[in-house]
Amino acid sequence: MGNERVIIRMQKNSSNNDLAKLFHTLEKKGFMARYVPYRDDCLVMVEGRPDRSLALQSIPGVREVVTTSTPFPLASLESTNGKASAVEIIPGLKIGGGEKTIMAGPCAVENRDQILECAKAVKKAGAVILRGGAFKPRTNPYSFQGLGSEGIALLVEARKATGLPIISEVMSTEAIEWMLPHVDILQIGARNMQNFPLLKALGKVDKPVMLKRSPMATVDEWLQSAEYILLGGNNRVILCERGIRGVETRTRNTLDLNIVPLVKSLSHLPVIVDPSHGTGIRELVAPMSLAALASGADGLIIEVHPRPEEALSDGMQSLSVPEFTSLMQSISRLIPALAVPEGSEKKCTSVTVM
Amino acid sequence: MGNERVIIRMQKNSSNNDLAKLFHTLEKKGFMARYVPYRDDCLVMVEGRPDRSLALQSIPGVREVVTTSTPFPLASLESTNGKASAVEIIPGLKIGGGEKTIMAGPCAVENRDQILECAKAVKKAGAVILRGGAFKPRTNPYSFQGLGSEGIALLVEARKATGLPIISEVMSTEAIEWMLPHVDILQIGARNMQNFPLLKALGKVDKPVMLKRSPMATVDEWLQSAEYILLGGNNRVILCERGIRGVETRTRNTLDLNIVPLVKSLSHLPVIVDPSHGTGIRELVAPMSLAALASGADGLIIEVHPRPEEALSDGMQSLSVPEFTSLMQSISRLIPALAVPEGSEKKCTSVTVM
Amino acid sequence: MGNERVIIRMQKNSSNNDLAKLFHTLEKKGFMARYVPYRDDCLVMVEGRPDRSLALQSIPGVREVVTTSTPFPLASLESTNGKASAVEIIPGLKIGGGEKTIMAGPCAVENRDQILECAKAVKKAGAVILRGGAFKPRTNPYSFQGLGSEGIALLVEARKATGLPIISEVMSTEAIEWMLPHVDILQIGARNMQNFPLLKALGKVDKPVMLKRSPMATVDEWLQSAEYILLGGNNRVILCERGIRGVETRTRNTLDLNIVPLVKSLSHLPVIVDPSHGTGIRELVAPMSLAALASGADGLIIEVHPRPEEALSDGMQSLSVPEFTSLMQSISRLIPALAVPEGSEKKCTSVTVM
Amino acid sequence: MGNERVIIRMQKNSSNNDLAKLFHTLEKKGFMARYVPYRDDCLVMVEGRPDRSLALQSIPGVREVVTTSTPFPLASLESTNGKASAVEIIPGLKIGGGEKTIMAGPCAVENRDQILECAKAVKKAGAVILRGGAFKPRTNPYSFQGLGSEGIALLVEARKATGLPIISEVMSTEAIEWMLPHVDILQIGARNMQNFPLLKALGKVDKPVMLKRSPMATVDEWLQSAEYILLGGNNRVILCERGIRGVETRTRNTLDLNIVPLVKSLSHLPVIVDPSHGTGIRELVAPMSLAALASGADGLIIEVHPRPEEALSDGMQSLSVPEFTSLMQSISRLIPALAVPEGSEKKCTSVTVM
Repeated sequence: MGNERVIIRMQKNSSNNDLAKLFHTLEKKGFMARYVPYRDDCLVMVEGRPDRSLALQSIPGVREVVTTSTPFPLASLESTNGKASAVEIIPGLKIGGGEKTIMAGPCAVENRDQILECAKAVKKAGAVILRGGAFKPRTNPYSFQGLGSEGIALLVEARKATGLPIISEVMSTEAIEWMLPHVDILQIGARNMQNFPLLKALGKVDKPVMLKRSPMATVDEWLQSAEYILLGGNNRVILCERGIRGVETRTRNTLDLNIVPLVKSLSHLPVIVDPSHGTGIRELVAPMSLAALASGADGLIIEVHPRPEEALSDGMQSLSVPEFTSLMQSISRLIPALAVPEGSEKKCTSVTVM
Repeated sequence: MGNERVIIRMQKNSSNNDLAKLFHTLEKKGFMARYVPYRDDCLVMVEGRPDRSLALQSIPGVREVVTTSTPFPLASLESTNGKASAVEIIPGLKIGGGEKTIMAGPCAVENRDQILECAKAVKKAGAVILRGGAFKPRTNPYSFQGLGSEGIALLVEARKATGLPIISEVMSTEAIEWMLPHVDILQIGARNMQNFPLLKALGKVDKPVMLKRSPMATVDEWLQSAEYILLGGNNRVILCERGIRGVETRTRNTLDLNIVPLVKSLSHLPVIVDPSHGTGIRELVAPMSLAALASGADGLIIEVHPRPEEALSDGMQSLSVPEFTSLMQSISRLIPALAVPEGSEKKCTSVTVM
Repeated sequence: MGNERVIIRMQKNSSNNDLAKLFHTLEKKGFMARYVPYRDDCLVMVEGRPDRSLALQSIPGVREVVTTSTPFPLASLESTNGKASAVEIIPGLKIGGGEKTIMAGPCAVENRDQILECAKAVKKAGAVILRGGAFKPRTNPYSFQGLGSEGIALLVEARKATGLPIISEVMSTEAIEWMLPHVDILQIGARNMQNFPLLKALGKVDKPVMLKRSPMATVDEWLQSAEYILLGGNNRVILCERGIRGVETRTRNTLDLNIVPLVKSLSHLPVIVDPSHGTGIRELVAPMSLAALASGADGLIIEVHPRPEEALSDGMQSLSVPEFTSLMQSISRLIPALAVPEGSEKKCTSVTVM
Repeated sequence: MGNERVIIRMQKNSSNNDLAKLFHTLEKKGFMARYVPYRDDCLVMVEGRPDRSLALQSIPGVREVVTTSTPFPLASLESTNGKASAVEIIPGLKIGGGEKTIMAGPCAVENRDQILECAKAVKKAGAVILRGGAFKPRTNPYSFQGLGSEGIALLVEARKATGLPIISEVMSTEAIEWMLPHVDILQIGARNMQNFPLLKALGKVDKPVMLKRSPMATVDEWLQSAEYILLGGNNRVILCERGIRGVETRTRNTLDLNIVPLVKSLSHLPVIVDPSHGTGIRELVAPMSLAALASGADGLIIEVHPRPEEALSDGMQSLSVPEFTSLMQSISRLIPALAVPEGSEKKCTSVTVM
């Protein structure tokens, strides 16, 4: 899977002249090079495996030359030398890097009272990010499709009232421009995991992006979708597992927690778990939230509704405020027990696959 | 799914005469009745819904008349009025009922040294039941098929040396009779989950049975297989989740933890999780063990091998002794954090399904 | 699935006044009505089930009032009273309505020679529509992404040279406007089956649209995606089965031919089968092409490449020209044998589901 | 998948002495050899790859030495040098080898009238083998489990009345002995595809065995199950595809016709298709029967019931006699159209996999 590829990392103080020389050397030998501004680094990616005689390492400005065969070099754990990333959401709030981040809120923004009431309640219970859908992808064209821009305006109002940063789904490239100033994290829904024009467009924005896994995607496909965003230059990518098509029909989806430690052995990107869509059943949300954190997830995104029985969408899987509050208490008991005592840590360096 | 059915529970002191009268009454009206000695109770199951005019409740010896439409009445949570079962393995050791039981040992018994060394090591680390395969179901007819009866003899020796009760797989009805005196729990492998002659035969034995879920079975199918055993009169049934065919190809299976709380909302039977087969990857076993317990599982069954790299089968997913020891320490930190503080318990009474 | 809904079909000569009166009547009672210009008809769709006392049938201009609970009323077979649709591609060429239409061509347009050579060859062998990808959705961001607009220009040239109408994939709403004048059928790829903004945009164009089934979609989800396009007013929708995620790993996908007769029992839309993606293996394309037609498909879309071993994408599943020619001969022997002799036809009126 | 293995085929007139010498030579060098009487041949299978210096070819009595890495050497197409097998059922009736064999009958034998009426009707319509279940594997322990031995007796009576050989499922090793004299083909149900004790026992009988594919098995797993039977010495193995767990929920299973040409590229064994279980919907049986034959299947097994609406099991997927008669007419029109005109045959020699 994936061909060989060379990644060249330039020195911080390298000049345009150095870069030009490098490209010249490569192209003379027929290699396709691609310039990628990535994080603070300047990278050059080369398809194929340039011969040692090119002596790339000795070209001025070159810091490091890495050969890789992973199909997702920028998302790979190798690219950070095994260090997990932390993604800054707003100053002082990060996802990843040891934090356990809880996002909560209604499936869809329905009206002013609902979102404000819900935002205050989830904040009180301990959530640090507010979720809420304004544009809802719906299987049926006749179903409620969300409040649209009005929904975004109400989310902004809820942020003002609570201070919670907001995450909301963006369904099309057209919508990016005007959602951008208003939301703190742009979510890519599971159905759009391989909407490549959308991924490319989000590679160009200066906001964190949360990429949900498609219910039929392998981890390799998912990380390659993340690679589209990273390759565009946006390094603030967060992954979100929300359940696959499994065998059981009583649950809406099958939450695949295996992939939490699997992703962490392959990629530096943080992983959030969505137990609401991952189960589709309110009573399963709490135990699966604890299981997700125990499996190593960096956080959760949970649907909460002040009156789940009246919700316009996903009521069956939304927690009431008391249920969410009780879950947050369980979580606060769990997290210290998951911490590894100092001196006893033993990092898995690689995953062997059967 | 499942037709209506009436379950009649007789009084402890009811007579054969009472029973005869009940059958007579039912058969006169054309109902098929079936006598089921179950636990300490005597049950009579009737297909269809006898008319109130039969006044079953007033027949002497009848304690309770319940109408149910579940396809697995004996396995259902209703049958115990919502109380989870604890299955006694040996005096003083139970699975279920609040305990978290850890079983460990090699995939297959390979030789005397291996099983004795492994048994002592897992006991020392805290396991309370020893696993080991003597008869191995193998996809390929040319693969190592286990030591057979010699393997059972070695397991018995390991039990003598450590005091640990043993669990081993039984693959055929022929093998039940002579395995029965030697093993403490008879395991039904995933491939035999719907081997109905085997299920019926194990319904007649006086030993606990652990029934693994097939990688393609729904929970309803699984519980109906358990019902075959319960209906035979053997009420010591333990369920074991070991992964389904999911989407991800890097893992051997997809551990489906959703079904742990789901089963607990439908059935009184204890649920064990097998993170070794459920992931197929050694490095994923520890995080998924913690996740399984956090989801509410009653215990784990884990493959451990003194030298995993030399194992004749499943080496890639077997923990070494130090890895297992370290996991047991993490488990001992986790379990207290999962306990619900007194006074705050809130039982889900039923699961609503989307 | 799907709530009740009333579809009101207006008389051809009904006036705007009639329509206004109808809306007024409905809205006074709180019903949400939606005007849908559809085919030659004017439809009014009403959520819920208006009371008989509204006497909708007697409002001037109303021709027919139908209550339905299908989630895809416009795509449903009921909406055409059980008659299958034929979709006109260009004057004199239809898909559906008894025709068996063969589309062929390369996975991707690679260069002028390749597409011209291929177009002439597939025409000679009997294909009536030319396929060719200009914008390629690729899992990996580093893979060949197609020639883009240059590819479209080459397709147009191939059409001029051969007279074959062309079908090509559109990946984004942005691309619709400028692809529209050049291609004869716009294809929606499997990954975009639930890209709702794209579906909505294609509901507004005056060109046929071929909607591929996602490898994880049920028929109901697929038909609801078609409904998005139909609801926009574009009634020239063609469905295309291209394989699902099944169990077998040697094949790229699992071609699901069950759904051909299933769709035909539920919907009036024509169904094309893609045996190239549906198998991923060249040697399986011919037998599965025959099987698809025998199952009742209205046609095939087949990848053909002059030199499959040099193809930039999907070479393993592309037929060579001689292989395609031989397949077309088999098809021409098969088709007459599938025809039902006159007088013996027996239409299945509905499908009963287990 | 599968290690290297050497298959040695002895000359017909080789002596026991020759064999002893061969074993001696191999064992001296530490190779494990296994004697397999197979068809008319005597085979010796050796794990690993003996060195050329052993000069196996020159040992007296050795006809051929083949190195293979397939996990199913006896089932493989290589083992017959690319020639498909024909399995003799009774004198004058074969499955495979160019024939298209239609088996039909009820899901379960219900009573004397039903099976006799059905046997006569399917014979009249053109079926050549009678199917009927006497022992029914049922998910639910309370469901009708078949008439058992009485059912077999009724099948035997139906054979006497019609001359049709009979096929029926055997669920346990215990039942083999007494079913053996009565049935002409022993069927292994999908749930028992990996019941290895049953497969081994059927390797020892002198009757054809039809092995159904499990709804979750890959072709490689299926062929390895067939290998168990072949390795026992029974070479009359027939495969049967009956649908997998796919994506669509309206159909009972997803008939996977891809695997028909796939199996034929890997194995010499004949393949029958079961469109009744493969769809679960009566109206889909006829089109999928035609599709199965067009994909290259060697025959069909179809559920037919004189009064499907009264069937004790599988009524929804059973054809009535007129429906089956009409299908047989369609089949007789189809078969000649599938024949390859002389001189134009072009065999695929191998399948390349993506």
